[in-house]
Amino acid sequence: MKATRQHIKEHNTTLVLQTIYQNTDISRAEIARYTGLTRTTVSDIVASLIDDGLVVEVGQGEPSGGKPPIQISLVPDARQILCLDLSSDNLFGTVVNLRGQILHRQYLPLDGRIGQAAMEQVCRLVDLLAGAATASSLGIGIGTPGLVDSTRGIVHQAVNRGWVDLPMRDLVAQHFSGPVYVTNDSQAAALGEHTYGSQRQASNLVVIKVGEGIGSGIVLDGQLFPGDGFSAGEIGHLMVEYDGLPCTCGNYGCLETVLGKRALLAKAQAKARQHPNSLLAQQSGGGQLSMEHLHQAYLLGDPLANELIVQAGAYLGAAIANLIGILNVRNIVISGYPEKFGDTLLQAAMAEARKRVLPAMAVETHLSLSTLGEVDVVLGASALVLREELGLP
Amino acid sequence: MKATRQHIKEHNTTLVLQTIYQNTDISRAEIARYTGLTRTTVSDIVASLIDDGLVVEVGQGEPSGGKPPIQISLVPDARQILCLDLSSDNLFGTVVNLRGQILHRQYLPLDGRIGQAAMEQVCRLVDLLAGAATASSLGIGIGTPGLVDSTRGIVHQAVNRGWVDLPMRDLVAQHFSGPVYVTNDSQAAALGEHTYGSQRQASNLVVIKVGEGIGSGIVLDGQLFPGDGFSAGEIGHLMVEYDGLPCTCGNYGCLETVLGKRALLAKAQAKARQHPNSLLAQQSGGGQLSMEHLHQAYLLGDPLANELIVQAGAYLGAAIANLIGILNVRNIVISGYPEKFGDTLLQAAMAEARKRVLPAMAVETHLSLSTLGEVDVVLGASALVLREELGLP
Repeated sequence: MKATRQHIKEHNTTLVLQTIYQNTDISRAEIARYTGLTRTTVSDIVASLIDDGLVVEVGQGEPSGGKPPIQISLVPDARQILCLDLSSDNLFGTVVNLRGQILHRQYLPLDGRIGQAAMEQVCRLVDLLAGAATASSLGIGIGTPGLVDSTRGIVHQAVNRGWVDLPMRDLVAQHFSGPVYVTNDSQAAALGEHTYGSQRQASNLVVIKVGEGIGSGIVLDGQLFPGDGFSAGEIGHLMVEYDGLPCTCGNYGCLETVLGKRALLAKAQAKARQHPNSLLAQQSGGGQLSMEHLHQAYLLGDPLANELIVQAGAYLGAAIANLIGILNVRNIVISGYPEKFGDTLLQAAMAEARKRVLPAMAVETHLSLSTLGEVDVVLGASALVLREELGLP
Repeated sequence: MKATRQHIKEHNTTLVLQTIYQNTDISRAEIARYTGLTRTTVSDIVASLIDDGLVVEVGQGEPSGGKPPIQISLVPDARQILCLDLSSDNLFGTVVNLRGQILHRQYLPLDGRIGQAAMEQVCRLVDLLAGAATASSLGIGIGTPGLVDSTRGIVHQAVNRGWVDLPMRDLVAQHFSGPVYVTNDSQAAALGEHTYGSQRQASNLVVIKVGEGIGSGIVLDGQLFPGDGFSAGEIGHLMVEYDGLPCTCGNYGCLETVLGKRALLAKAQAKARQHPNSLLAQQSGGGQLSMEHLHQAYLLGDPLANELIVQAGAYLGAAIANLIGILNVRNIVISGYPEKFGDTLLQAAMAEARKRVLPAMAVETHLSLSTLGEVDVVLGASALVLREELGLP
């Protein structure tokens, strides 16, 4: 019975906090009306939230007859969340507040570290973020490449990081106080887009992350869909080229072997060698081509760069067709390097997708580029902590 | 307030009926213990269910100290459901009881009818089923090919039937009393397998239906997942052959153009013509090859028939790889003509799927043939009516 009372109290606190979160400011009476709780219950909960520093009285609202009510508002910086994105070789961390505002950014290169050494670098990054935080921490959220059991915080397999059955959550928790949440980077990106991105009203949403690796995160009915083995959305290893190049996974012709950042740059490099006088070749001055070089050549209208991007878009379209045909999802967001190549890449992707799936379904699909950019994973990690710890948003 | 009391009463009635349904027989006291309802409430509800003929007293259970309690049991034939499967050119209907037992089967060929004439044939089939039912009807459930808005019972598009925006539910309801539910045939098959099939314990389940058309139904967390436009699982029009044969949908190389029943038989016919002395050619005596002929040749060990089945399995495997990669679903059931070709087809499908998706995900997938056979769609249609009308199972 006591447990039940405690449970109800927690439920009501979450309800009140959600109501305050969803409004810029709001009176106790309005909270009572929205939640259906008594004014006494609301007042008690608000008092305890004020004690915790999570909300604050912010002056008086518009009077509606009687004396003007006191307004309550969330304190966005009352708690801060330490968020890590391990998807790039340059580890990326942020300190994020309760409204998803980025307060601090921190990079820490892996410099070739793998396995335990890479994990130590992750802890170093948490350390730097903890030092940069200006309020007490609500928790640590991590988006990592690989197959991740997010209920236990174990990275089952992350090929490029050399991690196998790594208990990342517990390893981080040994060094830092407070709760730690670990999830797959693409799934974090989907959560970030669904919480803070342009398609946050969509109940079903797929976010495709294209970088060194390629993956997607799937939100169904407003919830992240993990699949039976936490690997839903693992489209990077779907075969798109029969008898294609070997992939790190052991198969051939995976999407990553043609659309991954390294694969695209290798193709660009080959093109540049074939056409030493092209704008593309000139960008790198004969040296190693980077994504920045390819981007510059594309912006200058180089036909070789354009061709590479159209081809990349077509490969992306093949994967998108499968997502549309299987999930009949209308909102798909692309994040990662495709953001640099805008409509050229998107149009090539949709043109290819239309050839590969029922036209009536393709025509209803809305493909867009991420508006969050590089912070999609860290914002998703922050949303995970926010939801688990405070029931927000 | 009255509406709320009514709502609670309905909720409690469903709860009691579910409890009786899930047990062969059960006493009022046990129902009260399972549901948490008072014995008075349970007795009132049971009395009203007995009045409705849905449950019955079935003698005495084991005494536990005092006098032996009276047992309550569901009356499986108290209501009957009229179920239609419109996926084949030979329309198929059944009368099904509350336990999913098939009481009557009825076939009605379309004989080339399309559009309104085909719809009239559907109503004729309902008429025949209504005549064969031996108890009052709980409702009519229909699984139809095409894009179906199942909340409104509208068939948006069913190419082979010539239906466009056909209000099937309302058309049937004009002629017959009682509720009518219409859903996509593959989605009905998935519901049938999830309710009555061998994989009914799986919380996530995909059922692939391979016949004249090809589609799949997706059950996630125990619920049918419809997608944003009721078309989730529409894998029949995913491209599997670049520059392949034209499809009725307007695209080229769709899965249906290589794995659909007609496509497979056309290939078999061509093979038979090339090899007039083969066992395959001998089955049809030089005439039109049927699935039965192909099946016979396969059973006799004809290498041509075997090759065709292995090839069909590989095409199926390409689609399965996409389902695994995107949904990370471990349980996949195949229904339709592949049931005739057992392990040969399944093994070819898994071999191809393994080449096309992350090996760690493929290895955990359990591919099996439907154990329900031709009744999967009608059983799914019955499950739909059962759930919507009585909250069962």
